[in-house]
Amino acid sequence: MLGYTRAPSKHSDRGAKDKVVVLGSGWAGYGFTRTLDPNKFERVMISPRSYFVFTPLLASTAVGTLEFRATLESVRRLGLDHFHQGWADDIDFNRKVIRVEANVSDDMRSRMNQMVAKHKSPELPIKQGPIFEVPYDKLVIACGSYSQTFGIEGVREHAYFLRDVGDARRIRLKVLQLFEKAALPTTFDEERKKLLHFAIVGGGPTGIEFAAELHDLIRDDLAKLYPTLQKFVAITVYDVAPKVLPMFDQTLANYAMNHFKREGIQVKTQHHMTRIRPDEETEGCMKLNIKEYGDEEVHAGIVVWSTGLMQNPLIEKLTSKALDCPPAVGNEELSNQQIRLQKNPKTGSILTDHYLRVNVVPKDAPPENGNTYPNPGAMSDVFAIGDCAAFTDQALPATAQVANQKAAYLAKGFNKGTVDETEFKFRNLGTMAYLGNWKAIHQSSADEMKGWTAWVLWRTAYLTKSMSVRNKIMVPIYWCITWLFGRHTSRF
Amino acid sequence: MLGYTRAPSKHSDRGAKDKVVVLGSGWAGYGFTRTLDPNKFERVMISPRSYFVFTPLLASTAVGTLEFRATLESVRRLGLDHFHQGWADDIDFNRKVIRVEANVSDDMRSRMNQMVAKHKSPELPIKQGPIFEVPYDKLVIACGSYSQTFGIEGVREHAYFLRDVGDARRIRLKVLQLFEKAALPTTFDEERKKLLHFAIVGGGPTGIEFAAELHDLIRDDLAKLYPTLQKFVAITVYDVAPKVLPMFDQTLANYAMNHFKREGIQVKTQHHMTRIRPDEETEGCMKLNIKEYGDEEVHAGIVVWSTGLMQNPLIEKLTSKALDCPPAVGNEELSNQQIRLQKNPKTGSILTDHYLRVNVVPKDAPPENGNTYPNPGAMSDVFAIGDCAAFTDQALPATAQVANQKAAYLAKGFNKGTVDETEFKFRNLGTMAYLGNWKAIHQSSADEMKGWTAWVLWRTAYLTKSMSVRNKIMVPIYWCITWLFGRHTSRF
Repeated sequence: MLGYTRAPSKHSDRGAKDKVVVLGSGWAGYGFTRTLDPNKFERVMISPRSYFVFTPLLASTAVGTLEFRATLESVRRLGLDHFHQGWADDIDFNRKVIRVEANVSDDMRSRMNQMVAKHKSPELPIKQGPIFEVPYDKLVIACGSYSQTFGIEGVREHAYFLRDVGDARRIRLKVLQLFEKAALPTTFDEERKKLLHFAIVGGGPTGIEFAAELHDLIRDDLAKLYPTLQKFVAITVYDVAPKVLPMFDQTLANYAMNHFKREGIQVKTQHHMTRIRPDEETEGCMKLNIKEYGDEEVHAGIVVWSTGLMQNPLIEKLTSKALDCPPAVGNEELSNQQIRLQKNPKTGSILTDHYLRVNVVPKDAPPENGNTYPNPGAMSDVFAIGDCAAFTDQALPATAQVANQKAAYLAKGFNKGTVDETEFKFRNLGTMAYLGNWKAIHQSSADEMKGWTAWVLWRTAYLTKSMSVRNKIMVPIYWCITWLFGRHTSRF
Repeated sequence: MLGYTRAPSKHSDRGAKDKVVVLGSGWAGYGFTRTLDPNKFERVMISPRSYFVFTPLLASTAVGTLEFRATLESVRRLGLDHFHQGWADDIDFNRKVIRVEANVSDDMRSRMNQMVAKHKSPELPIKQGPIFEVPYDKLVIACGSYSQTFGIEGVREHAYFLRDVGDARRIRLKVLQLFEKAALPTTFDEERKKLLHFAIVGGGPTGIEFAAELHDLIRDDLAKLYPTLQKFVAITVYDVAPKVLPMFDQTLANYAMNHFKREGIQVKTQHHMTRIRPDEETEGCMKLNIKEYGDEEVHAGIVVWSTGLMQNPLIEKLTSKALDCPPAVGNEELSNQQIRLQKNPKTGSILTDHYLRVNVVPKDAPPENGNTYPNPGAMSDVFAIGDCAAFTDQALPATAQVANQKAAYLAKGFNKGTVDETEFKFRNLGTMAYLGNWKAIHQSSADEMKGWTAWVLWRTAYLTKSMSVRNKIMVPIYWCITWLFGRHTSRF
């Protein structure tokens, strides 16, 4: 790692403030940095994108209810000491430096595909940005996760994800393009049926909300523009589990399913997708193989994929390698042997203690199932939060709420200088999902709600969290304008 | 042209209403269709894009003052009888049918490049959409023009145009990317100077307004985000003519130049660009050859090209071919011989009479310079308006104002059934240009204005023309939000 350019430090007197480097600009990284006191710490962020995405509203932007930019917050508005647009490529915990590859490309998705492909076949060439090093005093790993495809053929190439704002834009263009294509006088009815079948894989809140928003778009706006095409439209949600929305209790999940049934959205549980490939006969259309259907293939114009998460290449790299010489750890026994980061062997996430410090175990500790190694140490200056981190003894969902709470807890601990005094406690504030047609469901430990009242809560709750004043003004304006004039349906 | 699918007609009783087909959705085509009475005519539009672009605000969207969608009006809101998203590929004036190629691709620019390349080398393959035919009773050709590059090497491949909303988006991403790249710790100062030189070619209103808006963006927003980069920034406007803004009188043009000088924008008149090519040493940077500089090359991070117009391939095709059997024309002499459309040999545009009907001349009439053929005929059912059309004896500028007035004149004539009663008269409402820093210039036959008052006029004038209520609400909201919170500077 020698010989790389070193990023400049704003404070020439390095002793003045600790330099806290955060990897990632999602719910965890952005939330942490926003709360960290700039008077007490030098704040540095490394992320391939220069904005935070307000993910719960992505489905709304994908169908044109909201403008894309209303879900974005520029990291620049945090007034950071330094922001480096790039990927953390490796970390040297001994020298306390991060190796960063600058992101100067335009297309995030093609790059992610490259990285995933390279991880599987390391000999593949990859177009690299310039590499440089960033030193840290304290490090917060909050680089999130990738979409899980379970290695199913064709998913990475042909399915649409819904994790970043670029994904939302691609989905929106594709949906409008499918309608334009179906409307052509040269298109046969049989092809129209194929093109206008919208397949959503994954019955979690993201998949369900996207199905609901898509249904709203079609019913409220596209039905007026393409009245003759309505009879060809179908929306199907596929899930491998016996029920969708597993985080909601049976009453609410049933309410959601009945609502979907009335609206004509099909939900097919216990269906296993096994392949996606282009349909040679109808350009722009896909053929899906489903285990339960045998050789019979399902046609769809678009497949939106939302089945879960996998670790990104950095986390895999960090949790696989042995560290030559242990950095400061809280466990005396470990300081004289080679160590490695402790990971959950099932999900691959980094395990932390309840102060969110990264756990370490002896290099040759058996591949534990997460909580078997009796006495892990913890790095005093390296923390992990968000989707890439987990506890050994408590399974929390990979949600924005958990990431947000961990981020706030950690930043407050930094600010007060009490990082290892009180353990992190997750407070379940409840879960919400939009079901379309101005209805939603909400469930918390205290109560549950469904229908229009839950929808009002859904809309107002989204205005209170992590949003700038600008977007707090713009989002209701967009809602209002959409309600008055309909959604934008220009293919741009 | 046999054997193609025919587009369906909404009205089975074809005698009920005349079917008016409009080619194009710009100022001319959109404006015409908006005014045409749906009770009297069946309205059909053919355009590769499903929206009208409010072009005077494109420069504002390219720098993030306005959201892209605020400049778009969906053609669907016109409630057309039919809209076909595609290119008119050829017209059979005898059978009165248009051959249309459907546009089902995502990227307009790559397609335009393909078409331009194919026109030069017809053997080139081109990825085609499905082809179908659309019959008409009356035809309005309003398909606009392409950007003129004068065949200068590298312009089509490496320069950025500013004609459609996709162009504005590409420019915005590129400008932000250049700043990110210059900010990297691995970038040398010499490279920063190259990357942050913004070259604009063409000193007409579009080029000048873009330079002004770019300067505002850098001074108001990017200067705060990248304070250390400001010393490397330069903006230069190049023009071949001895003065810029030729449509303004000398006082106003001088005012503009003095204003630019104070703001640090360089204007280089009588400079001839001869080549643009990538700089191998600095990735993402361009090398420009300028005749006056000899072998010395100028470096720039981006070249924005706005030098004028050329005809699109359809107009060239239509004005080149001989028509086998003349359709109905107003000149008896011509009805028994082969004819062709009359064109301006210099600009290539279709010549019309003062009722905006397309002129025809004998096939073997000498290549006239526009107004030498003494007695052209006119097609009774084919009209041309906008940038693709001109008069033999009066040179009007290729502006939105002219297109808009011709469109309104023609549609009103259609509605009243008085197409050939009163000749079209252009009424000059004046010209405006934004100069940055809340200043503008305005000139009409009656008066001229400069400075802040002209800026107020500039802003209010743009709210009154061709805009939907939705955008009349949204544009001032965006202006307000930008004024309060600054421009969006996330690279998305």
